[in-house]
Amino acid sequence: MPVQLSSPAVADLLPIAGVRIGVAEAGIRKANRKDLTVFLLDEGSAVGAVFTRNRYAAAPVQVCREHLASGQGVRALVINTGNANAGTGESGLADARQTCNALARSLGLHHEQVLPFSTGVIMEPLPMDRLLGGLPAALTSACSAQHDSGAQWLAAAQGIMTTDTLPKAASVSFELEGRALRATGIAKGAGMIRPNMATMLGFLATDAAVAPELMNELARRLADASFNRVTVDGDTSTNDSFVVIATGQAGHPPVTDLSSPSGRALLDALTPLAQRLAHAIVRDGEGATKFITIRVEGGRDTAECLRAAYSVAHSPLVKTAFFASDPNLGRILAAVGYAGIDDLDVGGIDLWLGDVHVVTRGGRHPKYREEDGQRVMKPAEIEVRIGLGRGTASDTVWTCDFSHEYVTINADYRS
Amino acid sequence: MPVQLSSPAVADLLPIAGVRIGVAEAGIRKANRKDLTVFLLDEGSAVGAVFTRNRYAAAPVQVCREHLASGQGVRALVINTGNANAGTGESGLADARQTCNALARSLGLHHEQVLPFSTGVIMEPLPMDRLLGGLPAALTSACSAQHDSGAQWLAAAQGIMTTDTLPKAASVSFELEGRALRATGIAKGAGMIRPNMATMLGFLATDAAVAPELMNELARRLADASFNRVTVDGDTSTNDSFVVIATGQAGHPPVTDLSSPSGRALLDALTPLAQRLAHAIVRDGEGATKFITIRVEGGRDTAECLRAAYSVAHSPLVKTAFFASDPNLGRILAAVGYAGIDDLDVGGIDLWLGDVHVVTRGGRHPKYREEDGQRVMKPAEIEVRIGLGRGTASDTVWTCDFSHEYVTINADYRS
Repeated sequence: MPVQLSSPAVADLLPIAGVRIGVAEAGIRKANRKDLTVFLLDEGSAVGAVFTRNRYAAAPVQVCREHLASGQGVRALVINTGNANAGTGESGLADARQTCNALARSLGLHHEQVLPFSTGVIMEPLPMDRLLGGLPAALTSACSAQHDSGAQWLAAAQGIMTTDTLPKAASVSFELEGRALRATGIAKGAGMIRPNMATMLGFLATDAAVAPELMNELARRLADASFNRVTVDGDTSTNDSFVVIATGQAGHPPVTDLSSPSGRALLDALTPLAQRLAHAIVRDGEGATKFITIRVEGGRDTAECLRAAYSVAHSPLVKTAFFASDPNLGRILAAVGYAGIDDLDVGGIDLWLGDVHVVTRGGRHPKYREEDGQRVMKPAEIEVRIGLGRGTASDTVWTCDFSHEYVTINADYRS
Repeated sequence: MPVQLSSPAVADLLPIAGVRIGVAEAGIRKANRKDLTVFLLDEGSAVGAVFTRNRYAAAPVQVCREHLASGQGVRALVINTGNANAGTGESGLADARQTCNALARSLGLHHEQVLPFSTGVIMEPLPMDRLLGGLPAALTSACSAQHDSGAQWLAAAQGIMTTDTLPKAASVSFELEGRALRATGIAKGAGMIRPNMATMLGFLATDAAVAPELMNELARRLADASFNRVTVDGDTSTNDSFVVIATGQAGHPPVTDLSSPSGRALLDALTPLAQRLAHAIVRDGEGATKFITIRVEGGRDTAECLRAAYSVAHSPLVKTAFFASDPNLGRILAAVGYAGIDDLDVGGIDLWLGDVHVVTRGGRHPKYREEDGQRVMKPAEIEVRIGLGRGTASDTVWTCDFSHEYVTINADYRS
């Protein structure tokens, strides 16, 4: 059951000028479900992306990287759920390329102007007949649908789901160069999906104008503050992708520097949106009953803050203690202790659970009472704050707990 | 329920000349259970040890390190269960020292000749009155018991248990310099213990004669082949300790070089014993239903083999798949892919489950049939063999699966 997350309403989602979305039922793995989504981008759109660091990058990820590197302006995305096209070798690459070719032909584009994305079971060949057979319906949907509401965004959020229990989508409005702008994003991913493999996908579009050469950096900066700071079970999928689209339809002079006032304004507007989508993935994490913020402060650099935060976030003992609402200080401290910060003086460590100061200078706080710890562990949202006491750097990671349901979901036979 | 592990029989355990063991019921945490163990070592014994790398090393670990560094010959060990004396700051250090002082006084030793060990709940003060009150009974037990059988070793294996479901002990006989030698060891640890914190403790004694300056290296070499190659949940305890004792009572010329023929013979004899004890910890891992050997071959060095092996061994998705006896190739390959071997060419990877070749050159083996994978995943013992295809190094890690029972054990409220 997702943690304080509900399905987005169409009224809350803003269409983005320059983006048309079509969704179809191609029957890729199951009948009667939206499983094929296309994004059509008007000319002049700029696109950037970040992808999984898993060496087992899926075929569509490899093709995305090639097509983005080609420098052809991206004009279309095609996303299927039901099959990840991962671990499929040369024939998988050929399938991803053929998908792009087919869509490019229909739209009069070069194949490198199309980016492919897949999520679902791995090590099974993409059912190309059904995928290609579904493309005309997806295109018809994109071209005929009204794009004056967020309906197509919501349909796309549904069309990329796997074991997600809810679609994930959100919008923001902001101002840049005196104009009213907007951005809308969707995401999917619930840890690792049954029956096989995780995938975290995120697509975010804005009508802002951004110089194309900035887009990968923009995607990286946004991901580093959001999708790269969440973890459900520490397993990194073969297909993780996050795409940022700037259609430029707002008509202002393009942002050419992310450190300029307009660049910073853009980051300030889009970062909370990316975070909201990334948090939605954790809130809907497999078996999650708690949404946990782990903030590490007082590090020498952000790298060691992250090392400590992930060590806590990935500890099965910490995660089961959160599931039990058990303020188990020892497990958290031990996870900090084995995070690999070799010269860490544990005598400088502080720990807060919510507003309760539970550990000071590496030992139990003299005023800490177990019942205070239990009180702050009860709610569905918990903040853990760790002070390393050796510098001024800080960083934050978001995660969920580890429940019986996680084991049930992932130990079920594939069927 | 432990995986193919049964309680050792007294008849299988060999007493070691020069080692006297006493066990008492001190009531440290619970009444009517063996919880205080002393080892008395005859003069001339050589002792080496390795300890947790967790920065939150417990007080007894810190005191052990000091006492071993002092160069005073170790003549006694004192081990309590029920309380880990970890996260207890200065007063915990004082308690560990006081324990050594008390035992040293009774035995006419210098306090640095005593090593203390604790396991159990953390962040609670060691109940010194009960611990010190129990010492005379433990000493009486050591001095009055018959040491012509393995009975005291079995009692000690019981006396150091926490959530272990079975005591863990084993012996070997071997030959060195034409003499008949023996070694006996005990261990405890079942992942992380309820209600709080893991601890892996191992004590191994032989009547071999070894130069004292070799002992830490001997302990490290043995641990690297055994205790440092097992993982239940990836959490490293604050108290992990492994001690090797060579009493020298066999009377042969001491081993002065581990690379010499006698040094190698000693390693060859003790390594399987250390492995058997370490494997017993995994077999009795919290909630374990499978014992899994993960062997990685074809690496450039052992470091990258280990990185891949631990990545697979720690993946919650892989571990839940083992629980389900599901030959989920994708999860294993993905874990290899994110192990952090940056220039890994996944096109060179091979994977075997038992005797079934399931992946070749990074893709599903053409002859692999799912039913063969299911067949080899069914037994309680499974070997996973991964070929990285880029070198000649190899290494092995042992682990267990991840079951509902693990969550139940660790999500239970402390009580």
